[in-house]
Amino acid sequence: MPENLAYHSPAAPERFASIDRPTLVVDRARAERNIARMAAKAAASGVRFRPHQKTHNNVEIGEWFRAAGVTAITVSSVEHAVRFADAGWDDITIAFPLVTRAMPVIRDLAARVHLGLLVDNAVAIETLRSVPDPVDVWVDVDGGYHRSGVDPEGGGLFDLREPLLGLGRHRLRGVMTHAGNSYKAHELADIREVWRRTAATLSYAAEALERYTGRRGPDDDDIGDRRLEVSVGDTPGCSVMERFAGVDEVRPGNFVFYDCQQLALGVCDEDDLALAVACPIAAVYPQRNEVLIHGGSVQFSRDAATWPYGEHYGRLATVEADGWHPLPVEAGHLRAISQEHGVLRVSPEVLAELRVGDLAFIVPAHACLPANLVRDWLFI
Amino acid sequence: MPENLAYHSPAAPERFASIDRPTLVVDRARAERNIARMAAKAAASGVRFRPHQKTHNNVEIGEWFRAAGVTAITVSSVEHAVRFADAGWDDITIAFPLVTRAMPVIRDLAARVHLGLLVDNAVAIETLRSVPDPVDVWVDVDGGYHRSGVDPEGGGLFDLREPLLGLGRHRLRGVMTHAGNSYKAHELADIREVWRRTAATLSYAAEALERYTGRRGPDDDDIGDRRLEVSVGDTPGCSVMERFAGVDEVRPGNFVFYDCQQLALGVCDEDDLALAVACPIAAVYPQRNEVLIHGGSVQFSRDAATWPYGEHYGRLATVEADGWHPLPVEAGHLRAISQEHGVLRVSPEVLAELRVGDLAFIVPAHACLPANLVRDWLFI
Repeated sequence: MPENLAYHSPAAPERFASIDRPTLVVDRARAERNIARMAAKAAASGVRFRPHQKTHNNVEIGEWFRAAGVTAITVSSVEHAVRFADAGWDDITIAFPLVTRAMPVIRDLAARVHLGLLVDNAVAIETLRSVPDPVDVWVDVDGGYHRSGVDPEGGGLFDLREPLLGLGRHRLRGVMTHAGNSYKAHELADIREVWRRTAATLSYAAEALERYTGRRGPDDDDIGDRRLEVSVGDTPGCSVMERFAGVDEVRPGNFVFYDCQQLALGVCDEDDLALAVACPIAAVYPQRNEVLIHGGSVQFSRDAATWPYGEHYGRLATVEADGWHPLPVEAGHLRAISQEHGVLRVSPEVLAELRVGDLAFIVPAHACLPANLVRDWLFI
Repeated sequence: MPENLAYHSPAAPERFASIDRPTLVVDRARAERNIARMAAKAAASGVRFRPHQKTHNNVEIGEWFRAAGVTAITVSSVEHAVRFADAGWDDITIAFPLVTRAMPVIRDLAARVHLGLLVDNAVAIETLRSVPDPVDVWVDVDGGYHRSGVDPEGGGLFDLREPLLGLGRHRLRGVMTHAGNSYKAHELADIREVWRRTAATLSYAAEALERYTGRRGPDDDDIGDRRLEVSVGDTPGCSVMERFAGVDEVRPGNFVFYDCQQLALGVCDEDDLALAVACPIAAVYPQRNEVLIHGGSVQFSRDAATWPYGEHYGRLATVEADGWHPLPVEAGHLRAISQEHGVLRVSPEVLAELRVGDLAFIVPAHACLPANLVRDWLFI
């Protein structure tokens, strides 16, 4: 076993000594490397990099993006848009279909920043008339994930023709989707297929909207001059594609940290894992090879990763000089969680290394939720 | 269909008009009735009512308990203990095995309030020596849920003999468990069986500890004079038992709101459901009988309730003069959630009543998580 499987209270390096409750620990060097890699790929592909801030949702980490040359960002709610606008960002897209009840806040935002809004229905588009300052309008298209967006097969795009023609001061900018279906992939080839299918579907949708809104003639088949943009954004796709072909903008978010789900999909390496949750060990149960940690669904939510023998909520990691590394799932995983309790199932060899008062470093199944739920952060 | 299936923006009563993001709405009359009913049952049974504050975790709702005569409470973390101590509570039990890394905060708490602490291992018990002010010590016993606590069958209670004899100024108060296994019941009789089995196991554990620590002679079989207390606390058990037989203290928490899980178990009625999450409707998809709401795993977590055709995360409710009532599951349930998105599957009849800009009232599958995750509250 590595010597530093977990930090024992008395021997904890100073930087972890004060942790007395579940705390997000971010490996800054890894996160910055993840950001730089994605930014470079976008630049090489000639597409706009508008990274999603929903995973970290932390304005301090936002500055790491800015340092990497990022000037445009994506957020997932009106509230987050306000937070990042307050932190000095002035080109923000809210990648959630317009919440029409929030128009007062949205009008304020539109007056302060270059705002992009997502719509997928006539009511939302018509509501935009009440926004005095011009905004970019993106049409949400369902590329196959069936969460939100216009079904491109159902005539729904044509139904938006009249409302879109009445946009007035606002600019129809393009079509957008989140290909969350890539998370269901079994192998990397599936993820590439989702990318190609999504890009083709969105491209078709953009051209259809161009025809409906008079930007393109009915017999104009030249796809080279498409003027409406295509924006996509899932981390699996953006991680495995070598070039971002067929799109104009990418909005991945999870890639800043990655997690066990992404590792299981094969879209990141172990040393890309930039977030762990440090959880105090409250009890060790040798009879059942289990360990109780302070860290439950309030901190981890309940998104699971699969392994051959079921599901787990995170993997126990060793902490090495170059950062943490998850143990094999069978050697240590978060088997069960309730509100504040987490039960780690570990091998006998690992159990022998763990003591009450240690910190267990858990790489979560899905990083987005802990990053949004836990308020204590530590950057190392 | 009822007229007021959801509140349309223009017609919304004043009290809901300002809701522009997922908001917890609490029916105060129902919550107070739930509190009064449980308090009366505890009083009639002659047991201490030490309600868990982990579900609402809200000091304002804590005052509703105080108004019902409650003077002693349970919390699930050191952080929550501080919050409720700051709100004036002076008899607090932290029902989570001692987090030894948090001793500085715990020492401060012990100096301020009558503090109860839970332990299940020698390291934790020995750590209590560093607390100058006397605390009540409860031994966590695994009554069958296998989350935390000493296995009463494994010799583990005897192993605690020496540490417990060295408690010094602290007082060994009793044994405690959370019978979370009651949530797996198929019928009410199962829940009653879990209660009886748990009470018997804990009673045995209390007597064993009395023998090991010299409070009871080796041949003393009179169970009538047990001096160590038994504390239990699951909402299903506390709701269905007519009398709290065999225990000295009850610590239920979820009962203040109840939820779809409890309704499915049969331990509450529809008009006991005191919490709903009001979520803005962002899109309506007639083609697939689905509705997009702002409200996802950041708000609901991912605890599910089961129904014959799978799982769901909450039920759509109508809002009537006497409060909300969940529709049948097939008429409206939260089918899928991602970070901020919720997809409601509804019947065609319900879909026809819903419009972009309405609020959907969702009774969550499990109330504890939304109540801890959503920051916007509205009491009606």
